[in-house]
Amino acid sequence: MPSIEAEKKEHSYVTAITLAVLLLVVLLTCVPYLVSIALAEGPPQNTADASPIFGVTIPPGYKQWELIAPAEEAAPLDELRAVVGNQTAIDAYQAGKLPFPDGTILVKRAWKRKQSPEFASATIPGAATTVQVMVKDSKKYAATGGWGFGRFIDGKPVDEAQHRTCWGCHEARARSRDYVFTRLAP
Amino acid sequence: MPSIEAEKKEHSYVTAITLAVLLLVVLLTCVPYLVSIALAEGPPQNTADASPIFGVTIPPGYKQWELIAPAEEAAPLDELRAVVGNQTAIDAYQAGKLPFPDGTILVKRAWKRKQSPEFASATIPGAATTVQVMVKDSKKYAATGGWGFGRFIDGKPVDEAQHRTCWGCHEARARSRDYVFTRLAP
Repeated sequence: MPSIEAEKKEHSYVTAITLAVLLLVVLLTCVPYLVSIALAEGPPQNTADASPIFGVTIPPGYKQWELIAPAEEAAPLDELRAVVGNQTAIDAYQAGKLPFPDGTILVKRAWKRKQSPEFASATIPGAATTVQVMVKDSKKYAATGGWGFGRFIDGKPVDEAQHRTCWGCHEARARSRDYVFTRLAP
Repeated sequence: MPSIEAEKKEHSYVTAITLAVLLLVVLLTCVPYLVSIALAEGPPQNTADASPIFGVTIPPGYKQWELIAPAEEAAPLDELRAVVGNQTAIDAYQAGKLPFPDGTILVKRAWKRKQSPEFASATIPGAATTVQVMVKDSKKYAATGGWGFGRFIDGKPVDEAQHRTCWGCHEARARSRDYVFTRLAP
């Protein structure tokens, strides 16, 4: 029966094409997401780079995050600073809703202040000093207002004694604002 | 000849399915790009919002751009500032290559300095003052080092006299750095 043979052949041909096209759909659909995930996640963190007490690490890609506000800290620290946040943080700031949701990450970058070589009246970033991170996880950090803290110099966490001071200060001075000092710059 | 009829029917069926699947491929592939374009472009600009002389507008979405550096400007301006840049600007800064390529956009946000209510030693952004934009287009702005300038208060460009001052100062003080004052914060 050559016609049944031919029909079978055609069927398997159709099946093969359909499968190939479906595979193409899946691949083309996934590629942009896979690329963004790969770009967003960056290299895995070493646990030696995690802060004492809290286990907070410097989040990959934070330099690309949106600015929440710059700040200046007078002598003796004499620093320029800039706080950036992940999308969860930005969304919460824009909605003006407290407390910040779990998953919020805030990163404060800091530099020694330096006079601009072109403008006597302008102060610009000198050497980078610290990177300070706050991570919201209301269960994991229930004892510290839901916040985990990390303070890093040259990418390495400072000692446990310094990390013991974070919560007391945030608790005492920023309780009414979910323990976060920085406001969204207008 | 019912077998030819059936074959024709099957063929048109296969064609329809293939077309439908291809349409699905195209749609699913394009959706992420269309979404990013829509999010990136924002609302169209009004020409009344363009700077005199240069026709520079405030670029949509600039608040999401990556930070290049914060700065502080002493009295009488007494401001905190933050310069952000589009991806072309960031790539050029990271490559350390001058001149900046066409398409570079730099935006300086500025705020009155204000003492933090929680920390006497900290200065934070008060009211927003100006937004200042530099756009690189070596042909369009050939007479001003390839740069177009815009200075905006409350989203509206300041007058022509103020815009006449931009180039002279950048030319005199930042010639060796493609007329850009701001350096990438380390």
